[in-house]
Amino acid sequence: MKKISNTYQEHAPVIILVRPQLAENMGMVARAMMNCSLSELRLVKPRDNPLDAKAIASASGAQSILEDAKVYASLDEAVADLNVVYATTARRRDMVKPIYAPAKAIEATYKNLQQGVKTGILFGAERTGLENDELICANAIIEIPLNPIHCSLNLSQAVLLIGYEWFQKAHFTDNTTYKTGDSALATKAESEAFLQHLERELDKRGYFRFTDKRERMSHNLRNIFTRLPLSASEIKTLHGVITDLIRTPNDEK
Amino acid sequence: MKKISNTYQEHAPVIILVRPQLAENMGMVARAMMNCSLSELRLVKPRDNPLDAKAIASASGAQSILEDAKVYASLDEAVADLNVVYATTARRRDMVKPIYAPAKAIEATYKNLQQGVKTGILFGAERTGLENDELICANAIIEIPLNPIHCSLNLSQAVLLIGYEWFQKAHFTDNTTYKTGDSALATKAESEAFLQHLERELDKRGYFRFTDKRERMSHNLRNIFTRLPLSASEIKTLHGVITDLIRTPNDEK
Repeated sequence: MKKISNTYQEHAPVIILVRPQLAENMGMVARAMMNCSLSELRLVKPRDNPLDAKAIASASGAQSILEDAKVYASLDEAVADLNVVYATTARRRDMVKPIYAPAKAIEATYKNLQQGVKTGILFGAERTGLENDELICANAIIEIPLNPIHCSLNLSQAVLLIGYEWFQKAHFTDNTTYKTGDSALATKAESEAFLQHLERELDKRGYFRFTDKRERMSHNLRNIFTRLPLSASEIKTLHGVITDLIRTPNDEK
Repeated sequence: MKKISNTYQEHAPVIILVRPQLAENMGMVARAMMNCSLSELRLVKPRDNPLDAKAIASASGAQSILEDAKVYASLDEAVADLNVVYATTARRRDMVKPIYAPAKAIEATYKNLQQGVKTGILFGAERTGLENDELICANAIIEIPLNPIHCSLNLSQAVLLIGYEWFQKAHFTDNTTYKTGDSALATKAESEAFLQHLERELDKRGYFRFTDKRERMSHNLRNIFTRLPLSASEIKTLHGVITDLIRTPNDEK
């Protein structure tokens, strides 16, 4: 099996499709898994061949996950080496099991895997979902929070939502940031030089003629340009804008 | 436009598809939106007809969102009444904009809507995404955290992930608590061996004598032991319990 370079990869949750029907869906599940850095797929009694041309096409680059997928004749065999099994289900059952939101289940999975606890997540067949006797082997249920009056999800979408939680937990640190392209952010001195350039030229043209409002007008102006960090090259652009604006049409020739 | 009963519904974010191509994708977007209690869809220069039979079929019950969708000739017109616009994009651009993770952007959206701030979220065309001149109108970028070496998403999947964050923020309170098990957890095979041991001995003693209730009795029994992960040593204890229970007092000496 191909390993993505990642300390915890070996214990990332295993995705287990129970009686999946359509090759296309198996392919889309593989794609969603690769989107989320999940790699181990198990198939219990798949109806179509997971290496069917339709599966490969819909995997859209995630073919390796289908190739590495193991096929099992029973759910028991598919979960035999796992320590914790979650079952995803949309329908509530009369069954005494803990029910977790995806983020909670994934948080537990992530903590557990650091102690070598291997986790699998079950997804039922396309139309019927998991049968009661398949839910039995699960330690807990994962219920995806969705609009209760319209909660049916495509198989690959269910895998994607769980995988998305996994990716966020295992691989993502929120560094909400300002993207500045090739140019670095301007320094405060560069920003200040531009603001002074602007105010100097405005002053020459009587913009600040009401002395008692001068300070407030200056603050308002500065607030516009300091709200977001500007890049050094944007500062240059703004200097150019002033330079051009103050030319009289006669300058052009 | 149909209102879902919800205080904030009117200011839930508007989903804006810019130059969507395939009717099927527009239908799947409508379905994903309804999954997440989003209802307002805008389409800028769609190639296919959003009420095409393929769109209706793939909407899978969310047809009303397609019927209510407004079609615009330009992006400017589509965002004219909005206060804040986010653009979703997979590719990084050389453009100075704040970049938020979905959860952060949705949190801001949720806070803002309580003050009447109307927010739209842009999704680009299927293959090309948003063009640079379409990104200009956005106040900020939403970047969905996914495996950087395989991050391409179907249009409806991108809408689903953003919508999922919205639903969680606006409609869902997580009340689940996770009880951590022992660190040395039993494998499923070990648990299964115990359950079979238990059932075998019970069966010998007529526990399952009402054949029609056998399955339900077995399910109930198994649910007791699979509710929480058992440790390997707990499984041993339980084997011991059975072994002792089935001894007759005569064995004792």
